[in-house]
Amino acid sequence: MGPGPISAYPSVLRAMSAPLVGQYDPFMTAAMAETQELYRGVWGTRNDATLLIDGTSRAGIEAAIVSLVRPGDRVLVPVFGRFGHLLAEIAERAMAEVHTIETEWGQVFPVSVIEEAIVRVKPTLLALVQGDTSTTMNQPLDEVGAICAKHGVLFYSDATASLGGNAFEADAWGLDAATAGLQKCLGGPSGSSPLTLSERAVEVVRSRGRVEAGIREPGDASAADFVRSNYFDLGMILDYWGPRRLNHHTEATSMLYAARECARVLLLEGRDAVIERHRVAGAAMLAGVQGLGLTVFGDLAHKMNNVVAVEIPAGVPGDEARAAVLTDFGIEIGTSFGPLHGRVWRIGTMGYNAREDAVLTTLAALEAVLRRFGASVPAAGGTDAAADTFRAA
Amino acid sequence: MGPGPISAYPSVLRAMSAPLVGQYDPFMTAAMAETQELYRGVWGTRNDATLLIDGTSRAGIEAAIVSLVRPGDRVLVPVFGRFGHLLAEIAERAMAEVHTIETEWGQVFPVSVIEEAIVRVKPTLLALVQGDTSTTMNQPLDEVGAICAKHGVLFYSDATASLGGNAFEADAWGLDAATAGLQKCLGGPSGSSPLTLSERAVEVVRSRGRVEAGIREPGDASAADFVRSNYFDLGMILDYWGPRRLNHHTEATSMLYAARECARVLLLEGRDAVIERHRVAGAAMLAGVQGLGLTVFGDLAHKMNNVVAVEIPAGVPGDEARAAVLTDFGIEIGTSFGPLHGRVWRIGTMGYNAREDAVLTTLAALEAVLRRFGASVPAAGGTDAAADTFRAA
Repeated sequence: MGPGPISAYPSVLRAMSAPLVGQYDPFMTAAMAETQELYRGVWGTRNDATLLIDGTSRAGIEAAIVSLVRPGDRVLVPVFGRFGHLLAEIAERAMAEVHTIETEWGQVFPVSVIEEAIVRVKPTLLALVQGDTSTTMNQPLDEVGAICAKHGVLFYSDATASLGGNAFEADAWGLDAATAGLQKCLGGPSGSSPLTLSERAVEVVRSRGRVEAGIREPGDASAADFVRSNYFDLGMILDYWGPRRLNHHTEATSMLYAARECARVLLLEGRDAVIERHRVAGAAMLAGVQGLGLTVFGDLAHKMNNVVAVEIPAGVPGDEARAAVLTDFGIEIGTSFGPLHGRVWRIGTMGYNAREDAVLTTLAALEAVLRRFGASVPAAGGTDAAADTFRAA
Repeated sequence: MGPGPISAYPSVLRAMSAPLVGQYDPFMTAAMAETQELYRGVWGTRNDATLLIDGTSRAGIEAAIVSLVRPGDRVLVPVFGRFGHLLAEIAERAMAEVHTIETEWGQVFPVSVIEEAIVRVKPTLLALVQGDTSTTMNQPLDEVGAICAKHGVLFYSDATASLGGNAFEADAWGLDAATAGLQKCLGGPSGSSPLTLSERAVEVVRSRGRVEAGIREPGDASAADFVRSNYFDLGMILDYWGPRRLNHHTEATSMLYAARECARVLLLEGRDAVIERHRVAGAAMLAGVQGLGLTVFGDLAHKMNNVVAVEIPAGVPGDEARAAVLTDFGIEIGTSFGPLHGRVWRIGTMGYNAREDAVLTTLAALEAVLRRFGASVPAAGGTDAAADTFRAA
């Protein structure tokens, strides 16, 4: 019940035990195509360039940034938590000229502040986290795409922590690139990163095309400003997933099965229904921790559905209490990074864990542990409030 | 039965269905430490820096090269097949000054030729494929480490296709870095890349240390020549696997379980016993295809145990016949790249597939399909020769 990785859906765990096949076996290429189509549904996009990067969520981030950003390009990163710093870091390593704006942890940016910075910086790319688990905040994106389009800026968002548990509309919101991971609301293991690119982003990637030595054929492009990574060169990855099926990496078959099953679970239940389930479970957990008398961190109007940060009560040893919840109840909760390290616990309700029994059991365990460490908490204050929320939903 | 990916060991498939835990759960960190120790056994090393890269085998290659090579450094790549070109490509993208020497496909390099090139080029790094699946050749490495040490050159080898099915002694052979994948002789899925670094290599990596923004603390190093990738910065990956457990990526738990089980299977059977099983299965497959009257490609004295390339007989449509083996018998064999594309089939005997029934079934299928396409083949010529090899082993 931490901020992710989380307990996966049982069917996702089972999917990974399926036998492997060769990478150009028609069964495999059909599974790849099916996965692409399923993720179009997850992302809310008709983007042809919808695929998986074979690595964890930050592999997807790096693939998007190094493929879209040339050395020297300006990149604007609004930072409202740890993962904004990560986007800036990755862009800096890609030799971009990185500009950041920052807001206090626990807040998000008004869209006007983002537009002002765009006008001032004139970036090639706006790189914006949607849900930053470090602060639990959910940055509104719905008006940002139009602003980027108006100013000729590519719009990339990292939706690792939010996708599947909060609204995300790649096409309607004007995203040019978005990446995620399975280990949060999608309810799978870390190790595969769904990615989608608009046609405008594909054009940028294609303009830097280079087919690798060893399989290059006469007539294949080799741009001077080719991507300085082989593994993350989206041009080659598109050729691998696309009709040309040019050999690049060997697709991580078991992780593909997992990613496919994550999307199937979501679309079978219904994308809106899954988000609503996250909303209710998150509201119940919020009511529960408040019912235990705990103070919640951050701007609640912009909290992600799937994670809550609670201030560790004075006098309670945070790490020791967290260890007790894990050791005695088998339930993991997290702390956070930077200014919030040791100050808050983060409790998730994501994917398979966005369930009433998971929420209530966690609150019961938390109550018992808080009490043991001397905190004064209302008896059943957490479970009652959470159960009421579920009953009212 | 292609050149990989292959059918995984059943216990490896099952291992991936195990429940996930949080990344700093003591169970998880213990699993990571256990995996490191198991891979020391697989690699034949006492290197502390033995871990997994969360990506496919080429992710491991890129991590090793971008972390060991600074822009402008000279890298020497002896190319004897497609994957030598890949190492050169990755080093070139890392902005190294890349020098290659080439030998005819189907051959390996005499060690004297490699030493001459080292003396001439004076590289920082020698990057040398051990087993190149494109040609099936197994480059002898046992004398190369001493030569590199003599000339002050770092010695890196890509053992993706060979590790576990052919001898590999990281310490005894003087390797500074080596990487692999699970999807060949280790009998697992693609998506996790075992990597090991000598102390000398760790020193190079550490000299370029930079802790990423967002978790950097006062006193943390930030070298000017930091690695131009976040995901593949081995300094940060070492901090994540090491006692500091600094947050980097979120470990791909299910793939870690798979990698751990691959190593367990290998070490339980015994490293030498597994290599011998590959030797026998490979010899049987070789005898079998020869028993069918097929011509084998390349220098047989330097063939990897686990794959054989056979010339497609004149008059037989290679791709159609391969499709028939797959469609009618459910058995996959491969073709190859570059000059060998459409000229040879590659048949593997790797990991779980290095078994008598797998070899004989494949040869029976191949005989039937060759006959259907009009080739004149001795009845039971393949299966008899292979069975004799197994009986004599």
